[in-house]
Amino acid sequence: MAYAPSALALVPFVSVENMLRLVNTVGVETFLTELAGFIEDDFRRWPLFDKTPRVASHSREGVIELMPTADDVSYGFKYVNGHPKNTRTGRQTVTAFGVMAEVETGYPVLITEMTLLTALRTAAMSAVAAKYLAPAEARSMALIGNGAQSEFQALAFKTLIGVDRLRLYDIDHSASLRCARNLSGFGFDVTVCTSPEAAVEGVEIITTATADKQFATILTDNMVASGQHINAVGGDCPGKTELHRDILLRSDIFVEYTPQTRIEGEIQQLRPTHPVTELWQVIAGEAPGRTSAGQTTLFDSVGFAVEDFSALRYVKSLIGRVPAYEMLDLLADPDDPRDLFGMLLRARVELKDLAS
Amino acid sequence: MAYAPSALALVPFVSVENMLRLVNTVGVETFLTELAGFIEDDFRRWPLFDKTPRVASHSREGVIELMPTADDVSYGFKYVNGHPKNTRTGRQTVTAFGVMAEVETGYPVLITEMTLLTALRTAAMSAVAAKYLAPAEARSMALIGNGAQSEFQALAFKTLIGVDRLRLYDIDHSASLRCARNLSGFGFDVTVCTSPEAAVEGVEIITTATADKQFATILTDNMVASGQHINAVGGDCPGKTELHRDILLRSDIFVEYTPQTRIEGEIQQLRPTHPVTELWQVIAGEAPGRTSAGQTTLFDSVGFAVEDFSALRYVKSLIGRVPAYEMLDLLADPDDPRDLFGMLLRARVELKDLAS
Repeated sequence: MAYAPSALALVPFVSVENMLRLVNTVGVETFLTELAGFIEDDFRRWPLFDKTPRVASHSREGVIELMPTADDVSYGFKYVNGHPKNTRTGRQTVTAFGVMAEVETGYPVLITEMTLLTALRTAAMSAVAAKYLAPAEARSMALIGNGAQSEFQALAFKTLIGVDRLRLYDIDHSASLRCARNLSGFGFDVTVCTSPEAAVEGVEIITTATADKQFATILTDNMVASGQHINAVGGDCPGKTELHRDILLRSDIFVEYTPQTRIEGEIQQLRPTHPVTELWQVIAGEAPGRTSAGQTTLFDSVGFAVEDFSALRYVKSLIGRVPAYEMLDLLADPDDPRDLFGMLLRARVELKDLAS
Repeated sequence: MAYAPSALALVPFVSVENMLRLVNTVGVETFLTELAGFIEDDFRRWPLFDKTPRVASHSREGVIELMPTADDVSYGFKYVNGHPKNTRTGRQTVTAFGVMAEVETGYPVLITEMTLLTALRTAAMSAVAAKYLAPAEARSMALIGNGAQSEFQALAFKTLIGVDRLRLYDIDHSASLRCARNLSGFGFDVTVCTSPEAAVEGVEIITTATADKQFATILTDNMVASGQHINAVGGDCPGKTELHRDILLRSDIFVEYTPQTRIEGEIQQLRPTHPVTELWQVIAGEAPGRTSAGQTTLFDSVGFAVEDFSALRYVKSLIGRVPAYEMLDLLADPDDPRDLFGMLLRARVELKDLAS
C-alpha cells in the first residue's frame, strides 16, 4: 500500500512567495485595513487571552524568541530572531515564521512566513493606536527612520487614518530616497528632509522607527509640539530607546502589555510605577484615549503576541479566499493511531517496490 | 523582475513521507543506533545546554507545549500537543514537529515532522538508559502496553542492548497481536501473554508504555524481581503514573531532568527530596549506574528537550546524505534588507504581468 498523506496530515503553509501573492492579490491597503480590524477585535477581548511572556534564548550574537498566546479557539506562536550582525552576511536582522493551531485538537492549521507579516501587523497596530490617540483628522506625519518598516507605516496611516502628507528623515539619505520612490503612486505628498528637526515641523503625528540597538535620542523635548501624537516603533528591546526622557514625562503614554513594555519600551527610562494606559482599555471603551487637542500622546510600541495572533487569524481567514498556499505533509496520521510502526513498515515495502 | 527565493530564504523541510523514506533508507535499526549515539553525545555535555522549562498552554481538551533548548551552535524546539480525546475524531493524541536554527544567525536550518521522530528518540533514549542500567548481557524484556511506542522500544533494545526475547502484554489483546505481527522478521522470539504477571516472568528488563492518562498501577511490588531493570515510559505527565509506589521505594531511580521529572514522572508519588540520579551523570562517568546484580534499577522516563535536540541534530546530519527533504521558501530575503516593501512592489508587478 502506497503512502499517501490523509487530509488530517496536511497543514496549509504560506511561503514568502505566497505571502507576496496574498498581499498583492488582496491589495496592500485592504490587507492593512482588514488586519487592523482583526487586531481591534482581539484587543477588545484582550482579557480572554492566555498571555505568556515570550521565551527568549539569548546568545552573544543575538536572541531567538518564541511568542505564544491563545484564546479559547486558537493557539498561535511566532518564532522570531534578532541578530544585528546578520546584515554583514546578507541576512535579515529579524526573520520570523508563525504557527496557528486548534485549541480543541492541538492540530496545527497554519504555518506561515512572518517576516513580511510582522511588518504589516506592526504598521496596522500603529495605525489602530493612532485612530484612538492622534489629533482628529490628522493628515501629516513625520517618518523618522526610513528602513524596512517605513513604507508599511506610511500606507497603514494613509488607509486607516487618512494621512497623506509625509516628511521623511533618515540618517542614511538614500534610505529616505528609497522610501519616497517606493511610495510614489500611492497618493502621498512626500518631502524628504535633511534633519529630524525639519521632518517634525508642523506635523500632527511623529513616527520613529530607527534601528540602532542602543539608547539613542532621535527626538528631544523641544522638537515635540503640544498636541502631537508620537508613534514610537523603534525602541523595542532592553537598552534600545529613541525618545528623550523629558518627552515621556509630559506625554500620556499608551502601551500594549505593561509588564513587557516596562522592560522593552521607551518607558524603561521611567520608574516602574509611572502611569501608563493599556491600549486595549481604550479600544474596549474602558479608558479614555485622546481627551484634548493640546495633549501629547505617545504609543510606546514594542509588539506583542496578541498582534501576531491577530495576523495569523487574518491570514488563516484568507486561506480559501485566495489560493496562495500549499499543503505540507506535517502530521503523521496512521490509519490506526496505535500503529505508527506499521506505517513505517508499509512505507518500507513501497520503497523496495520502487527500487525493484 | 520575477520573485525567486534566494538560497538564504530556503529551509530544508522533512515531511512525514520523507521521514518514512529517511528512516527506511537508513534502516530503522541503524537510525536508532545512530540517534542513540547523538543522544549519548549530548547527555555527555549536558551542563552546556540552555535548559528552559517547557512552555505549556493548557485547555479543557488538552495541552500544547513548546520545548526549546540550545547549545552554543544550535537552537531547537519542538511543538507537541497532547489531546486524549483526539482518537474519537481519527486524530492522533500526540503530534509534533520541530525546528532547528543556527544560534549565530537565528536562521532556521531544519523543519521536520516529529511524531515519528519522537517515537524513535524515546525508544533510543530508553535503550541508552538500559545500556548503563540493565543487567549485563540482558536478552529478555517484558513489554507492557503495546501501543504506538512498543515496536520502537523493542527494536531499540534489540539493536543497542541485544534483547531478542520479548513478552508482550496489553489490556487490548489485539494490540499485542499487532505488535507481534509488526515485529516478525526482525529476529525476536515473541510470546504474547494474557496477564502482566505472565509477561514479567523471568525477564531481565520490564518496559511499561501504557497510555492511560491517570494514576494506574501496571506493576505492583510483588511483580518485580530483584535485579530487574524497569524502563517506565508511560508515566509522563502530572496525574499519570504506572508503577506502585513501593517499587519506587526499593529501586535506584534515574531521571532525565530532575525538576521536570518530579512533576511529570513516576516520582511525583514520592516526596520531593527522594534521592534520584540524573542519567547524564552516569553517561558522563560522574555517577554510577548499575553497581550490583541484585539491584533494582528504574529509568523514570518523561522525555526532555535535549533528546529532541539530539533527534533534530541527527536528522540535520542526514540531510545531504539522504535526499529525503524539500526546501521551503520560509524566510523573506530581499536583495536589500532595508527594502522589504520593494520586494512586495516587485512581486506586484510580476502578478500584473501574469494577469495581462
